[in-house]
Amino acid sequence: MKIDKLLLNFLEEDIGKGDITSNILPDINISASIIAREDALIAGADVCKRLFALVDCSADVLIKDGSYASKDDVVMEINGKARSILSAERTALNLMMRMSGIATITRRYIEIAKSVNDKVMISGTRKTAPGLRYLDKKAIEIADGYTHRYSLDEMVLIKDNHLAILGSVRDAVRLAKKYAYGYKIEVEVESLKDAIDAIEEGADMIMLDNLKPDEVYEIVEAIKKKGIRDEIKIEISGGINLTNIRDYAKADIDIISIGSITHSVKAIDLSLEINL
Amino acid sequence: MKIDKLLLNFLEEDIGKGDITSNILPDINISASIIAREDALIAGADVCKRLFALVDCSADVLIKDGSYASKDDVVMEINGKARSILSAERTALNLMMRMSGIATITRRYIEIAKSVNDKVMISGTRKTAPGLRYLDKKAIEIADGYTHRYSLDEMVLIKDNHLAILGSVRDAVRLAKKYAYGYKIEVEVESLKDAIDAIEEGADMIMLDNLKPDEVYEIVEAIKKKGIRDEIKIEISGGINLTNIRDYAKADIDIISIGSITHSVKAIDLSLEINL
Amino acid sequence: MKIDKLLLNFLEEDIGKGDITSNILPDINISASIIAREDALIAGADVCKRLFALVDCSADVLIKDGSYASKDDVVMEINGKARSILSAERTALNLMMRMSGIATITRRYIEIAKSVNDKVMISGTRKTAPGLRYLDKKAIEIADGYTHRYSLDEMVLIKDNHLAILGSVRDAVRLAKKYAYGYKIEVEVESLKDAIDAIEEGADMIMLDNLKPDEVYEIVEAIKKKGIRDEIKIEISGGINLTNIRDYAKADIDIISIGSITHSVKAIDLSLEINL
Amino acid sequence: MKIDKLLLNFLEEDIGKGDITSNILPDINISASIIAREDALIAGADVCKRLFALVDCSADVLIKDGSYASKDDVVMEINGKARSILSAERTALNLMMRMSGIATITRRYIEIAKSVNDKVMISGTRKTAPGLRYLDKKAIEIADGYTHRYSLDEMVLIKDNHLAILGSVRDAVRLAKKYAYGYKIEVEVESLKDAIDAIEEGADMIMLDNLKPDEVYEIVEAIKKKGIRDEIKIEISGGINLTNIRDYAKADIDIISIGSITHSVKAIDLSLEINL
Amino acid sequence: MKIDKLLLNFLEEDIGKGDITSNILPDINISASIIAREDALIAGADVCKRLFALVDCSADVLIKDGSYASKDDVVMEINGKARSILSAERTALNLMMRMSGIATITRRYIEIAKSVNDKVMISGTRKTAPGLRYLDKKAIEIADGYTHRYSLDEMVLIKDNHLAILGSVRDAVRLAKKYAYGYKIEVEVESLKDAIDAIEEGADMIMLDNLKPDEVYEIVEAIKKKGIRDEIKIEISGGINLTNIRDYAKADIDIISIGSITHSVKAIDLSLEINL
Amino acid sequence: MKIDKLLLNFLEEDIGKGDITSNILPDINISASIIAREDALIAGADVCKRLFALVDCSADVLIKDGSYASKDDVVMEINGKARSILSAERTALNLMMRMSGIATITRRYIEIAKSVNDKVMISGTRKTAPGLRYLDKKAIEIADGYTHRYSLDEMVLIKDNHLAILGSVRDAVRLAKKYAYGYKIEVEVESLKDAIDAIEEGADMIMLDNLKPDEVYEIVEAIKKKGIRDEIKIEISGGINLTNIRDYAKADIDIISIGSITHSVKAIDLSLEINL
Repeated sequence: MKIDKLLLNFLEEDIGKGDITSNILPDINISASIIAREDALIAGADVCKRLFALVDCSADVLIKDGSYASKDDVVMEINGKARSILSAERTALNLMMRMSGIATITRRYIEIAKSVNDKVMISGTRKTAPGLRYLDKKAIEIADGYTHRYSLDEMVLIKDNHLAILGSVRDAVRLAKKYAYGYKIEVEVESLKDAIDAIEEGADMIMLDNLKPDEVYEIVEAIKKKGIRDEIKIEISGGINLTNIRDYAKADIDIISIGSITHSVKAIDLSLEINL
Repeated sequence: MKIDKLLLNFLEEDIGKGDITSNILPDINISASIIAREDALIAGADVCKRLFALVDCSADVLIKDGSYASKDDVVMEINGKARSILSAERTALNLMMRMSGIATITRRYIEIAKSVNDKVMISGTRKTAPGLRYLDKKAIEIADGYTHRYSLDEMVLIKDNHLAILGSVRDAVRLAKKYAYGYKIEVEVESLKDAIDAIEEGADMIMLDNLKPDEVYEIVEAIKKKGIRDEIKIEISGGINLTNIRDYAKADIDIISIGSITHSVKAIDLSLEINL
Repeated sequence: MKIDKLLLNFLEEDIGKGDITSNILPDINISASIIAREDALIAGADVCKRLFALVDCSADVLIKDGSYASKDDVVMEINGKARSILSAERTALNLMMRMSGIATITRRYIEIAKSVNDKVMISGTRKTAPGLRYLDKKAIEIADGYTHRYSLDEMVLIKDNHLAILGSVRDAVRLAKKYAYGYKIEVEVESLKDAIDAIEEGADMIMLDNLKPDEVYEIVEAIKKKGIRDEIKIEISGGINLTNIRDYAKADIDIISIGSITHSVKAIDLSLEINL
Repeated sequence: MKIDKLLLNFLEEDIGKGDITSNILPDINISASIIAREDALIAGADVCKRLFALVDCSADVLIKDGSYASKDDVVMEINGKARSILSAERTALNLMMRMSGIATITRRYIEIAKSVNDKVMISGTRKTAPGLRYLDKKAIEIADGYTHRYSLDEMVLIKDNHLAILGSVRDAVRLAKKYAYGYKIEVEVESLKDAIDAIEEGADMIMLDNLKPDEVYEIVEAIKKKGIRDEIKIEISGGINLTNIRDYAKADIDIISIGSITHSVKAIDLSLEINL
Repeated sequence: MKIDKLLLNFLEEDIGKGDITSNILPDINISASIIAREDALIAGADVCKRLFALVDCSADVLIKDGSYASKDDVVMEINGKARSILSAERTALNLMMRMSGIATITRRYIEIAKSVNDKVMISGTRKTAPGLRYLDKKAIEIADGYTHRYSLDEMVLIKDNHLAILGSVRDAVRLAKKYAYGYKIEVEVESLKDAIDAIEEGADMIMLDNLKPDEVYEIVEAIKKKGIRDEIKIEISGGINLTNIRDYAKADIDIISIGSITHSVKAIDLSLEINL
Repeated sequence: MKIDKLLLNFLEEDIGKGDITSNILPDINISASIIAREDALIAGADVCKRLFALVDCSADVLIKDGSYASKDDVVMEINGKARSILSAERTALNLMMRMSGIATITRRYIEIAKSVNDKVMISGTRKTAPGLRYLDKKAIEIADGYTHRYSLDEMVLIKDNHLAILGSVRDAVRLAKKYAYGYKIEVEVESLKDAIDAIEEGADMIMLDNLKPDEVYEIVEAIKKKGIRDEIKIEISGGINLTNIRDYAKADIDIISIGSITHSVKAIDLSLEINL
């Protein structure tokens, strides 16, 4: 229901009052293919199938969401009116190119991280393109990443700016437990002391933000030594990239969240070609 | 009116039923700054000022849309309720980080192109993030780029897929002139012959797609030799990047359009910090 | 999609919370006919067929959009629940009576004009009933008229009020070419000098507004003598009616636009009768 | 609230993504006048004042709704951005030209009718332009006409098609009194017998439809003779025009309803001129 | 159409971004039953059948709207995805529990009243839960109650606050007859004098508000003695409950309206159980 | 923003196309009072103040949300147009009567429960009137009750129907921890064994549903004896009323949730009177 409304908005944004170019085409049926121009983990195929259905075309998904396409593979075949397919082409490609871009890089982070730490999860953040939260997160999920909060009403996450106002980690967690009864509580911490304060006050997760791999390692080991590692989930965040993730992932942490997988997407090159 | 509705949708997407973290803050007023963490051409400052106004905060823009920020510059100062500022923080940053990313790279392309061809324009495409067409194009405009079609109802652009159905460039242009009376007509061509066909039939623009710099140069010179260069605007597109743009720009062309400036945005690193 | 939403709005406007008269009818199926009470070029039959479908009735169009009905002809037969047909009756008739009124008068203008100038087109304007732009233009199209701009975002049309501010035709066209790149440009002119200025600056169309037939003739001939007639489309507008159109149409012009075909519609008399 | 939404829809319909002509104007303030090009009873001035307010312009109404304008009178003066005034011009004129057209003809019918029957009211019908019910009726009200039903949920009006199904006037009125308790009941009748049946069953109004003046007169007199004239309101309808209304109005009737005042509007000629 | 939109809003209110509990269920089909935990007159079964259809489940209504369920009876059987049934469960039960509560008490009032006065109707008021006017009234109708005004645009009802401003009953009724031509007129009166004034001025209904049974009886008898009882419908209102309704109903009145049947609903206990 | 939209919907529901009774009033300003006809804990005053602001009236709250009104106290004074106040009267009263009804009974439960167990909270459920979830919960909050889940996306609550499908409490909690990472988990249990299973698997809350006070007491004591009481929040639910709540509250539990406070609201009697 909601996804349909979103897709119709996207089509309307691109088509406006009418595709005056495709309107000069004869009223014939054609078949067309979406082709991968580079290797990629596909995401968005299901969504595009639905998009084409909304303009009365049928689409056959050859490479499913979560599967790899090699360069020149046909990802999807579409059948329908020439005018409809070409009018929806750009919207479909814009969606699948972005979602596959997110999925491909997410999976790459997961593969590297898992190679040194089997239990760690790669997570998205709220640094998504405005209006695309659902689809950006969907792409992460398709790549087996962890979606984390879709919105601010799901979990308490006390960040540095909140702490600057509330004064201390302990006060902040206490307030959260009182007023946000019923929700999990995570706290962004930058030192061992703050980490321990958060755990002792009953936080469910801590986020070690903007630390170097060594610093993360030290704090986690100190927590383990105190015997309170099991009481908490540990997330790290900030400045993590393809080069340094291996070092971070070696620590005994639960979640690595990476903003760039959605805020700086490199689109996968896909094109739609008519089958003659 | 419309931009307000868009921004309210973005806020609702991020906040959902309520920011349960910021709700634990005291009901106090604060001031906060948005800070550039790297050099950038700023875009989105006006939009974010409006966003903060929608949550009853006032924002003072220190670095305006279209001006450069250096690393550590304060781009904007915001005053208002702590809860409101922190609830809108992520949406504001997501917008300005993306728009500034688009503007910064667009300007860079413009500078390189202009250094060899003063009249050439750098243009966006319809390869924008779905739902963000207006703001992605706005960022291009802020960088002095050319926005090109916002949607399919503005200008006829006959692409390879249309030609595959319509048969010949001449037939396509004739049909367009008949049925899309009142609109400019552009045709994607891949050879000199097609270019001349398009010009002779009265197209307003031709797009040389996916050609090498040499090929572009040859076709443009042949057109000039025939004395019909002034009857047409020439756009090139496909595979243009920071490395090869100089070679393309040397040709006597009018527009260079580059999909990656919006489909593969590298966000500018910005952060919001409370002023204590 | 959009036409459905429009039609549902129209139905809701007329029905409100419920048709309290038709609700007293028995729950039976009936058949009914829409009958022409005068000769007319039918427009709106397709739209009304869709309207009846939205209230779960089926309609059989006997006289199609763009065909002539003679007095007492059955235009359409409808089958469905008595309550549904009678609840939608007024909305259907209001639509078809107006659209057929527009189509009938448009076709009459076309016939007269074509009898003296085979290439001239009869065009509508933006003087439509607010909210009915699409359907008013649709009726013109059904009559083989030219729809002209649906809205202000399609083509530049510089009118007297714009010129009063911008100063000169030449300045106005130059600005338009710079800022409205990608759109066709039309200029309203009232003298030969302005016409030539517009053409020389590269306007695509000129509109000769509120001139007498002689004046139009003189200006057009002067343009031809200068050998620049082919560079421009010529539209005339203002004060054209069934009596004087023949005189105007004799000039070598491309378009005659007539506001009254939509701003002063004489509805065609149609009625809906139950078949017993 | 609702009128604002309606007006914003009308503006959006006409402006689309932006008025690309007015956008080339300098960003200056101007004053402009709406001028009557013919004598007219003005309606729509208030609505247009609100329309201009929605685009941040102020309007000073010189000739109020319900007052007469002579040819060349200034009806309204508008101040604001040149771009805003010219972008809203067409929508404003379309509204006021139609509403004044409705008001002017309605008043003319009223004047003729009142000259022979002081108590009779001139009434509109539901034969309005789809989407404009409220404004079409408003124009009637401004001319001191009677608006009659805005929609089908307000009053029971049993017409010939309903009677064809329900069999007899008496049965129809009885059903209506049972199921539409709380609403007034009107019945369309074509004979004295039906009229008396309706009155005796307790209908509140009868509509004498498509009768000649003599026939109306006879039926009304027969009703009076039976001493039941006071129990009922009498409306006549069908085929009434400026020529024959006087004959109809002489009968002792309460309401004359005329579809053409809204289904076949002759727009009043108004124009907007910039004050230099 | 409208009921669907209402139901989708209700579902969205309850489900939000997703039912995170039901999402952990396997993707299987189940059958479930809605069971009455107490005797009740069922209302809302049709609405709930539609609600389940909106989440792609089919529902078989065993005890129809307007029929009695005994404790432990199965009212409805639902088949579909486990996730869908359980996600819609609460919304369905909330609707049917409230509607059946309204219907059950309404029917009880009707039975008592009819036992002493066969023609009297039990009526609802506008004291419904905001947003639920349609469904609250529907429940009354299912119980054979009279729904009275759905909204303020249907009938004139002059209450004490209006009279306080308008001065006298006679003035109020005269104004209403003039300005609300076409609508029935009811007046709230508290004395015989006011009742007679209202009747003589031509009101269609009077409401005797907040009077004791004796007072009602006296006023009604006085009206009958004056021979004007047939000119008016008499409604009583205010302070009527299961204990005293019999005394009120004995008077020769037409309508007894009772606010508490919708403003103080006692929900019927219903539960949904999976059939294993 | 959202509350405004909700209130405007409520007003539109009640007013429809216009309050035809209040429209006959003179266009004067008046003052009016909302008066408590019985003792009550007021809720909804803020919301009604906003409602009156939406119809351009100002309201002065004399008895604030969360304070007690005695019979005949003035809760609020409103100033504005007579027509506006009377048109909004019913919607305002419907809201405040319901919300105050919820708040009054909630507070009464709280007072009884706190008299025997100082830490226990009285909680609402999702058994609210469809469309009124936010306002029903708001009334509970005003009374110092606990609102519990606003919707199904906030917390996992595994109920008997989920368990019937998932098989065992242990499996259910394990699945929830895996798939609903980031959310608190509550399980409905009916025996000590299930309670302990839930606790050992790491559930955050257990709900003891439909047990007698003795059974609750026994299970809680057994949990305490095992030394795991602190690992869990304990909620009880089902069949709790003003008579038996004291017995339940004596157990060492955290939350008592009571569906009837919102599904079977007894409205507080309030009226609006004009001040003359």
